[in-house]
Amino acid sequence: MNTRSYAALSAGAALVPYEFDRRELGPHDVALDIAYAGICHSDIHQAREEWGPAVFPMVPGHEIAGTVTKIGSSVTKFKVGDLIGVGVFVDSCRTCENCKAGLQQYCLEDMTGTYNGYERDGKTIAMGGYANYFVINEDYAVHIPANLPLDGVAPLLCAGITLYSPIKHWNVGPGKKVAVMGLGGLGHMGVKFAVAMGAEVTVLSHSPAKEADARAMGAHHFVSTKDPKVFAEHQKEFDVILNTISAEIDINEYLSLLKLHGTLVVIGLPGKPYALQVGSLLNGRRSIGGSMIGGIPELQEMLNFCGEHNIVSDVEVIKADYINQAYERTVASDVKYRFVIDAASF
Amino acid sequence: MNTRSYAALSAGAALVPYEFDRRELGPHDVALDIAYAGICHSDIHQAREEWGPAVFPMVPGHEIAGTVTKIGSSVTKFKVGDLIGVGVFVDSCRTCENCKAGLQQYCLEDMTGTYNGYERDGKTIAMGGYANYFVINEDYAVHIPANLPLDGVAPLLCAGITLYSPIKHWNVGPGKKVAVMGLGGLGHMGVKFAVAMGAEVTVLSHSPAKEADARAMGAHHFVSTKDPKVFAEHQKEFDVILNTISAEIDINEYLSLLKLHGTLVVIGLPGKPYALQVGSLLNGRRSIGGSMIGGIPELQEMLNFCGEHNIVSDVEVIKADYINQAYERTVASDVKYRFVIDAASF
Repeated sequence: MNTRSYAALSAGAALVPYEFDRRELGPHDVALDIAYAGICHSDIHQAREEWGPAVFPMVPGHEIAGTVTKIGSSVTKFKVGDLIGVGVFVDSCRTCENCKAGLQQYCLEDMTGTYNGYERDGKTIAMGGYANYFVINEDYAVHIPANLPLDGVAPLLCAGITLYSPIKHWNVGPGKKVAVMGLGGLGHMGVKFAVAMGAEVTVLSHSPAKEADARAMGAHHFVSTKDPKVFAEHQKEFDVILNTISAEIDINEYLSLLKLHGTLVVIGLPGKPYALQVGSLLNGRRSIGGSMIGGIPELQEMLNFCGEHNIVSDVEVIKADYINQAYERTVASDVKYRFVIDAASF
Repeated sequence: MNTRSYAALSAGAALVPYEFDRRELGPHDVALDIAYAGICHSDIHQAREEWGPAVFPMVPGHEIAGTVTKIGSSVTKFKVGDLIGVGVFVDSCRTCENCKAGLQQYCLEDMTGTYNGYERDGKTIAMGGYANYFVINEDYAVHIPANLPLDGVAPLLCAGITLYSPIKHWNVGPGKKVAVMGLGGLGHMGVKFAVAMGAEVTVLSHSPAKEADARAMGAHHFVSTKDPKVFAEHQKEFDVILNTISAEIDINEYLSLLKLHGTLVVIGLPGKPYALQVGSLLNGRRSIGGSMIGGIPELQEMLNFCGEHNIVSDVEVIKADYINQAYERTVASDVKYRFVIDAASF
């Protein structure tokens, strides 16, 4: 079906209005009118081809919230009128051990991305969520609780699950001390989830001006890392550190803040490798781990949790013609805390 | 009591015969005649002051096996004639949460090392195990099973526990695929323990000549990393990788061999930081962790396990006057697989 969108026609080009035909509904597909699409920093990296060869024309967007308008003949999971969310992938092999475990993000054949690649047919370019309309296999979409504002929900589909999944995997909860490095689109979701799980939450940020926001989101402590002596003061304090910082840092300083058996989880992708001093790990049997979004069952679990705890992303809603400016501001960390495009403006 | 030993009198100096007075037995102390003392690579680093400022004169040695000759008035754990082992530390604060948990190696005040530092009185230089005689607080010594050869036991007190502890902590056992990086003093203990625990064990080594030894120790597979294509062939294969290599390597190549939720445990201390590509961790929710020896309860557990499974280190027994040559050969990885000094030669 004819779809209005914004696309990058080549690497690094400004995004422009773009029309294309979405695939027709198959028996297991659901059609949705998109209400909001979040702008993720990874959209920018890919549209600018900063993460290796990309596929153009590229319609970015993998934080998609909307309403089901039509269902395929065999669809059972959704009905017309349901609120529906689509995230970072739209399919996977479904047969490997990771897919079978509901961890499609770690599909051994690689997940089928929402954009910047091809659909499972291997030839149709997958077009993302900066658009008015979407088609998705029902198994790869999730239900959105009705009590949440849809604009704030959109970023949950990537930024939200990216924090929720490691928070669950590393057992953040009551009695645990958790630090969130960086208070941006990812970090602010980490604070909200960790607080809701009952942990004692500290924000580590080099921007002292963010303290008020951090506390408003529920953080119990705020530590400005502009002052290097804070690293000595907070040695061996945290069970889990969630690292959302993509700028260059000395990772060993942060590892020294972990207590016995603590884990620092890397979520943001830094541009350069970390210079990892192994002594930081040996002392206290510490670990550094990575985590990448979440599988479909966990995506649904997170949205249910958000519904129960009234958690959404803090957003600035924009029109489509502001996307390129929003990109610049996202790169400059000048957004509180996520841009979301009103899909009516496509 | 007068003690005969070998000591480095200054940083990097050759070790020479050295006599000193060990402290008299306190009520909780045990005296032992040392039978064998292992040579650990860390002895060399410290005697050469390669790990920061060191304390001289230095009698190295923290892999000590011997026989109790005298006990203090309040000692209950040992009696004269018992076989006894002493490892990397001889005391700790005893009151922090880690000490209380039996993880004295992670004492929040820092463990009291067997040498290259001061005893808990803060003024007596701690003299290690390259000696004929030792005095130790009973709480920091362990029993040695009578069925094991004492020369092969000595290296268990450091090299052994250094592998045993992470193998237990990361649940190596039946159904798990484990790789051991490097077949040296540490690695050969890793192979023996992982095999005895029932795991499927692969040795990753750049020395194809070591395959026969690896298999004789029970390894099920041997992969020569001289051929770079092995990294592609063994992607996502292992649950746990035990890294005993101190030479410079590309750690990301090894991380790519971990399956979902796998952990690479660093045990050897490399000279340079690792250039850690975070993508290696995000893909498969992998972790890289560190581990350092083990606490007293686990040290005893390991020795009991070794007694039950007839596990000791493969050793070359030397006389004291060969220590300096043994140091050169250890640095050159020319030992199968641990030098042990016959303490009768001091």
